[in-house]
This record gives sequence, structure tokens and C-alpha cells, in this order.
Amino acid sequence: MRPRFYVPGLDATAACVPLPDDEAEHLVRVLRLATGAEVEVFDGRGGLWRAEVIESGKRSASIHAIEAIAAAPEVAVPLTLVISILKADKMDDVVRDAVMLGVTGIWPVVSDRSEISLSTVAKSQRVARWQRIAVSSTKQCGRAVVPVVAPAQGLASYLNEPTSSVRLLCVEPVGPPLMGGRVLPVQAVGKPESAHVIVGPEGGWAPAELSAAFAAGVVPVSLGGRTLRADAAPLVALAALLTTWSEL
Amino acid sequence: MRPRFYVPGLDATAACVPLPDDEAEHLVRVLRLATGAEVEVFDGRGGLWRAEVIESGKRSASIHAIEAIAAAPEVAVPLTLVISILKADKMDDVVRDAVMLGVTGIWPVVSDRSEISLSTVAKSQRVARWQRIAVSSTKQCGRAVVPVVAPAQGLASYLNEPTSSVRLLCVEPVGPPLMGGRVLPVQAVGKPESAHVIVGPEGGWAPAELSAAFAAGVVPVSLGGRTLRADAAPLVALAALLTTWSEL
Repeated sequence: MRPRFYVPGLDATAACVPLPDDEAEHLVRVLRLATGAEVEVFDGRGGLWRAEVIESGKRSASIHAIEAIAAAPEVAVPLTLVISILKADKMDDVVRDAVMLGVTGIWPVVSDRSEISLSTVAKSQRVARWQRIAVSSTKQCGRAVVPVVAPAQGLASYLNEPTSSVRLLCVEPVGPPLMGGRVLPVQAVGKPESAHVIVGPEGGWAPAELSAAFAAGVVPVSLGGRTLRADAAPLVALAALLTTWSEL
Repeated sequence: MRPRFYVPGLDATAACVPLPDDEAEHLVRVLRLATGAEVEVFDGRGGLWRAEVIESGKRSASIHAIEAIAAAPEVAVPLTLVISILKADKMDDVVRDAVMLGVTGIWPVVSDRSEISLSTVAKSQRVARWQRIAVSSTKQCGRAVVPVVAPAQGLASYLNEPTSSVRLLCVEPVGPPLMGGRVLPVQAVGKPESAHVIVGPEGGWAPAELSAAFAAGVVPVSLGGRTLRADAAPLVALAALLTTWSEL
């Protein structure tokens, strides 16, 4: 596989396209590619090109696009993962895997049982870190669209935002029946125009959060009868929905 | 949730059931449960009971079963994950997640691009470790059936074993078309009597391994157009198949 570089706003008709600093550094210092090396560049919005390195300096590098090539297919249903922030390395894995499964957005939320506060998320610059992971995962999985990691927000603030997307909230198999038992098995979720998949934290949702979500029109979805780990649930939910919609 | 203990061969009609040493140690030293505490015990073959601690000694503990209760549902299709051994902590996660999704067996194999040899697996007692993880994951996900982790074997040896199960091998989206393009999308896999789901190592399958597998009647299955990480592929494959078969 040719090394891949992300160039936001890439103009493929330009004779010489300089790489952003971090991508140039990767090309020059990590991969040690020289002029003439063949690479791939993508614009993050679906465009992918075979390209040639035409300048490899001390800390800078430029390429020239040769021809457009096909990227990994995008999911026809724009899919946003709304995820209650998990512990550090688990959250990294969730971001990486969600990108590989094809989401177009990742919206981190803080809920009652999250083990982190909004101000800690902001101070620790985690969103920037997750965005870098999303770029790296985009490269690895062959996509040419970089999903956007949104700023973290509280669950209530998320629920108050109007949206035309279907909002699916993954619920655990244990506990009292929710909504009078009107929980949809994941296999029964019809293919929507666009969807938000909402996954809770290690300790699950608080009862008041569930009530608020249902009052806001969120649809409870079951991922089967066995209790999943919080960091496995997003992957299972996305894989199951994409399979149901023939979009894996 | 009541603490759960695994008692292989449990006789629920006995007045006094001693726990195995490691489970007793967990009850006494970690959870510090006293006589009269309410727990759950399961026999690893589907039986689950509400029970009472009737003896809690220095290193031993006994219970008395009160009544049979319902465990998390089992998948109707016996499902074995045949997995090319991944790096240490990733393999631990795969075992844990596969149990939660409902497999009945995990068969570790060593393939050309595995980063470990059969003799290292044997010396390091990894199979015993994975079996302990399988027990622990069974407890967490609410099942009462403990999946069996088989001794590790070479891929060729696995392929030579006769089986009545459908054998599905997950292939990557990149590379030349396999089998003249006759790769089944995972959504198109019919519900079998029983199935083996075969997942490769970080570096993928070697061409000779693919030829040997197809010669042995193994069916290549695609998990979509985006390249998955090796440690995410088993979870995605299992979730997608269970969804396809309405068995999640």
C-alpha cells in the first residue's frame, strides 16, 4: 500500500501542492521518502489521488497529483456516533473503530455517569487528540473522507439541539422494561436518511437521562440479550446497523 | 447485580455446594461476602441459580442454590471463532468480546503471519489465561454457558479437521479479487446449523493459506469496503453475522 497523506482543501490541478506541516514531517522524518516516491493524497472530503513527491526538504514536502483513484466506499446513510466519553485509551479505540466502520461524525458527550467533566475534556485537549486519531484511522481504512470530531457537550445540550436525523439510543438488556417494552431490536431499525447512534458510559445511563432522551424523541434500541462492555457497544451497534441496512 | 460464581458440574439439589478454590478466594478475599449473602451460581452449561452463602471460611466457601433463574439467551447457531493469535492485550480483548457476543468456542490458530509460534503459546500458558478471561466475561455478560478455548493449532491442522460446520473466512477489501470474485458479503450469508468464523492476523492471510482454505471448502466473506483493524474484525464479523441471522 502506498503511504497516504491528508491535505485539506487539496487542489489536484496544481503543479505543486505543499503538504501541511505534520504530514510533511511524517513524509520526511518518519517515512524518509525522497523526490520521485509514489504516494496517495486525499482531501478529507472524498477525493483521493495517486501522487508523486516532487520536493522533500528538511521539514517540508510537496507533491503533484497524477490521477484520481477510488477510495473505500462511504456509507450511504450519514451516521454520527454520539458517545458518552469513555476512559482514555478505550475512547481512542472507539474513535478509531467508528471511523473504520464509516461514521461521518463523532460527537463526544458528558453524561451523569461519565468519569470526566466538560472542563477537564476542554483542558486536556482531548478533542484535538481524537481528531488526529480520526485522520490516522481514515488513512488506515482506505477512506478519503475524514469524520469530524465535534467539541464535547453535555447530554442535555445535545438532546435540546434540533435535528432531522433519526436518533437511536443503545440500551442494556438488564433492568426494568423501558418505554413499556417498546425497545427496537437493532435488526428492526429501518434505513433512515441519516442517523445518530447514541452509546452510554461504563455505568450506563441514569434513569433521568433515559426519560429526557425519550421525551426528546430518541428511539431505544437493543443490541441483544447479552450485556456488552461499554467500549465494545459502539462497534457492535454500528456493525449491526450497517448490516441491517446492507451498508457494511 | 448479584455477584456471580462459576461452579462446573454444580448439583443444585445439594444442601451444600463448595466453590472451587479460585471462586471461593474471590468470594472471601475480594468481595468479603459473609454467610447469608445472596449470590448467583452457574454451571457453565446453561444453568443459573440464585443462591445463598452458607459458609465463608478463610479460603473456602459454600453455597446453597435457592431457585433457578434465567440467564442471558444463547445464540441458536453454535458459533466458533477461529482466530489467528493477535498480540497479547488485543487477544485478551478479542476473547472477552467474542464471549459477550455469544460464541460457544474460541479456537486460536497460528498462521504464517502470526507473530507467535505454537511452542511459545504452549510455554506461556496463554490458553489457560484466555480460558480464565472467557469465564470472567461469561459472568459479566450474563451468560451461563462458558465457551471453551481450545488448544492452539496451526492453520493447516485446523483446515484438515473434518467438520459439519460452515466455515466462513473473513477477507480484506483490498488486493486482487479472490476466487474469481466469489466473495460473499456478510449480509448474504445464510443461517447455518453451526458455523466457524475465521479471522486472520495483523498482516492478513498469506496467499498460500487462502488457497489451502478455499481448497478445503472454506467460504470467503467480506466485511465491507473499509479495511478493519485485526482486533476489530472478529467483533464486526460476529456482530454482522448475528444481525444477519437475527441472533444478536
